Amino acid sequence: MRNIKLVMEYDGTNYAGWQRQKNAISIQGVLEDALKGITGCFTEAFGSSRTDAGVHAKGFVCNFFTENTIPGDRFSKILNSKLPKDIIILSSEDVEESFHARYSSTGKRYSYTILNRELPSAIYRNYVYHFNYQLNIDNMIEASKDFIGKHDFTAFKSNGSSVKTSVRTINQLEIVDNKEIIQFIISGDGFLYNMVRIIVGTLLKVGVNKIKPEDISKIILSKSRHLAGPCVPASGLCLEEVFYD
Amino acid sequence: MRNIKLVMEYDGTNYAGWQRQKNAISIQGVLEDALKGITGCFTEAFGSSRTDAGVHAKGFVCNFFTENTIPGDRFSKILNSKLPKDIIILSSEDVEESFHARYSSTGKRYSYTILNRELPSAIYRNYVYHFNYQLNIDNMIEASKDFIGKHDFTAFKSNGSSVKTSVRTINQLEIVDNKEIIQFIISGDGFLYNMVRIIVGTLLKVGVNKIKPEDISKIILSKSRHLAGPCVPASGLCLEEVFYD
Repeated sequence: MRNIKLVMEYDGTNYAGWQRQKNAISIQGVLEDALKGITGCFTEAFGSSRTDAGVHAKGFVCNFFTENTIPGDRFSKILNSKLPKDIIILSSEDVEESFHARYSSTGKRYSYTILNRELPSAIYRNYVYHFNYQLNIDNMIEASKDFIGKHDFTAFKSNGSSVKTSVRTINQLEIVDNKEIIQFIISGDGFLYNMVRIIVGTLLKVGVNKIKPEDISKIILSKSRHLAGPCVPASGLCLEEVFYD
Repeated sequence: MRNIKLVMEYDGTNYAGWQRQKNAISIQGVLEDALKGITGCFTEAFGSSRTDAGVHAKGFVCNFFTENTIPGDRFSKILNSKLPKDIIILSSEDVEESFHARYSSTGKRYSYTILNRELPSAIYRNYVYHFNYQLNIDNMIEASKDFIGKHDFTAFKSNGSSVKTSVRTINQLEIVDNKEIIQFIISGDGFLYNMVRIIVGTLLKVGVNKIKPEDISKIILSKSRHLAGPCVPASGLCLEEVFYD
């Protein structure tokens, strides 16, 4: 049985997220329909993670098993001819049968984009979170440093997923301040449910002086969800890259 | 009679352009409907230019006359509560009765954005022109210099508009090369119909070595539309700013 790895870009605006659902259009559902059209069989796509409704991706990874004889790098071209314009297969290739987009992953990088001005944007509305309060970026950068490293991130996860451990390692948390556009770049070995969005929500609370930079360590140690900031909206989130060895 | 100036941002993707039309949804039509809802009367909005279907704006200007007593700066907030999310009024203010968004304008600045990679983008698809050929940026920058200044731009206009003269002055034509994203910034005292898009199309022909940088001056002097490059798609174009004295 062949195992094919896909790297995908998608605009999550019009989808109920990655995961196949009965009564909503999902990325996985649309992709699997296209795969069925090519292979003639139902073909399950295994995603690197579930992305929520409205979340975008520039480097989502999935894999599927097939008996089809199409060359590995041709799948992307054929799929792109069948997929809607808001889903693009960036690459396709044969991989070892043991490869699994989720379980083989060694980490991920996300971006989260804020539009920091008085009025929302007509053009960027689906790709940013409009946040209309002045931000103390220096304090946010100071606070961001305490997320780096291996911690129990129980305080930064939403209910709704069962995981064996809430310990994760964050390798990078950068804040890029470009006038109205403020972007968070965060990478780590894995992320709990809504973890990126809650970390950003907490850093925004630091930015408006509702949480002190020196309190981040205490919030992490507390494991108390209510001490951390809110889960910011899906629209600002983009899965940039999934890492494999 | 009061004269109110509006500065607008809009996502042109779902509109048939600025100009009101009988059987299509236009920015002007949607704005005038909102104005009627506020003032109770049909209120014509005078735009700084016509933008084509799919063209975006971050600083479009229009004005309208009204007897309404709402404070000038309040119109933006009230309009934003009635307009769809892809049209935002950035500011509103009372101006002199002689002000006309189009005839008082002393110039405009546009941007045009290219996605220069093999595959189109799922996320940026409505905001860029996907151009899948390697570009000689140095030659394009060299060629761009010959557009600067006062010239007869007959070779760079589409049919479909009647103007007294085709002489225009271009003050700025910058090419910003940021990996996959190449952006043209162009400002001048005015632009002929499709002039920005034809200049960009010509510079792309320079980029793929179909036109030599030293031929730009000859093409301008020729006044021959067929010697210039193609009119590139609307999606990449954005009206950034309209200038007034």
